[in-house]
Amino acid sequence: MSKRIAGPEIERLIQLLAKVPGLGPRSARRAALHLIKKKDQLLSPLALAMGEAVAKVRVCSCCGNVDTSDPCTICTDPRRDPATLIVVEDVSDLWALERAAALNVRYHVLGGTLSPLDGIRPEDLNITSLVSRVAEGGISEVILAVNATVEGQTTAHYITDQLSGLEVKVTRLAHGVPVGGELDYLDEGTLTAALKSRTVF
Amino acid sequence: MSKRIAGPEIERLIQLLAKVPGLGPRSARRAALHLIKKKDQLLSPLALAMGEAVAKVRVCSCCGNVDTSDPCTICTDPRRDPATLIVVEDVSDLWALERAAALNVRYHVLGGTLSPLDGIRPEDLNITSLVSRVAEGGISEVILAVNATVEGQTTAHYITDQLSGLEVKVTRLAHGVPVGGELDYLDEGTLTAALKSRTVF
Repeated sequence: MSKRIAGPEIERLIQLLAKVPGLGPRSARRAALHLIKKKDQLLSPLALAMGEAVAKVRVCSCCGNVDTSDPCTICTDPRRDPATLIVVEDVSDLWALERAAALNVRYHVLGGTLSPLDGIRPEDLNITSLVSRVAEGGISEVILAVNATVEGQTTAHYITDQLSGLEVKVTRLAHGVPVGGELDYLDEGTLTAALKSRTVF
Repeated sequence: MSKRIAGPEIERLIQLLAKVPGLGPRSARRAALHLIKKKDQLLSPLALAMGEAVAKVRVCSCCGNVDTSDPCTICTDPRRDPATLIVVEDVSDLWALERAAALNVRYHVLGGTLSPLDGIRPEDLNITSLVSRVAEGGISEVILAVNATVEGQTTAHYITDQLSGLEVKVTRLAHGVPVGGELDYLDEGTLTAALKSRTVF
């Protein structure tokens, strides 16, 4: 703004809100004003919740998930099948798979994908901890649920190599037509993969 | 989510973020994860800034603006012309006009518009304080910068009535073609208004 129209506290709040993904400079102003107007119902609880998160959130030393306890809620859940492990790139992928709720198993979060161009090497990812977790025994299947990108597939191959000496089945997600998807809008790669992996109707 | 996958603190943070305008349930999860990952650079400062705002933000007793001081930064700015007052519906309108920076004057925030259907009566708005502010003297022009909606115009007429006995010029914003606007996309009302208020080129 060209001149000071409010105290520095409000301008700082707007500046920080603008850095939240999904908000830009304009929507941050709208959000700040809404929060200020709903001070007791929203701004105050949100400030508290963020303070709590700052104080309590930590990375799970077992799987790399973020949670307020270590080991995390998922790693300590006794109702989950300990024999299967889903390997994901990021915590957001873990959350997405949990929303699908297809398998009641545990996870291992890599924290990224191998990318020589960006300088991300195997030792920058949680691969060593994955290998030792599998080496400890009790895990019969590792599902590589990495993104279907070049980096994701490179990482998947590297992990398969690392796990090759161990008694574990390594699987990956199926490629195919997304549920609800229209063939006309799909790329050739996906269509070819869907045809190759066709199943009996 | 179908089952607990993280501590209650993280789920509460997501729930509250989803209530921020501009964020929904999906983007709130993304935002929460981003904030948690950038704990020191973003989450912690944001929690502090919100706590500061909760503690310090108040409504200006003179004009109805929100700020961390009362009277607000604008009301106490000695470089602003005290003879002109811009009446706006909401603080967001005040901020929009300040961004335009066309006039260096003071404001009066109504806090809404008259709306019998929603049960908003004159006594629910800061109209009495506006009239007494003008009656104190020193103000020669009141610019009614209310929205060009039915409620905004009703409110403008009501305020004009209330101010009719006082020595003050009441003006309103010009109607016309928005700068950068194309005639083809404008409604008939705007075009008629723009033609009626045409100026010498």
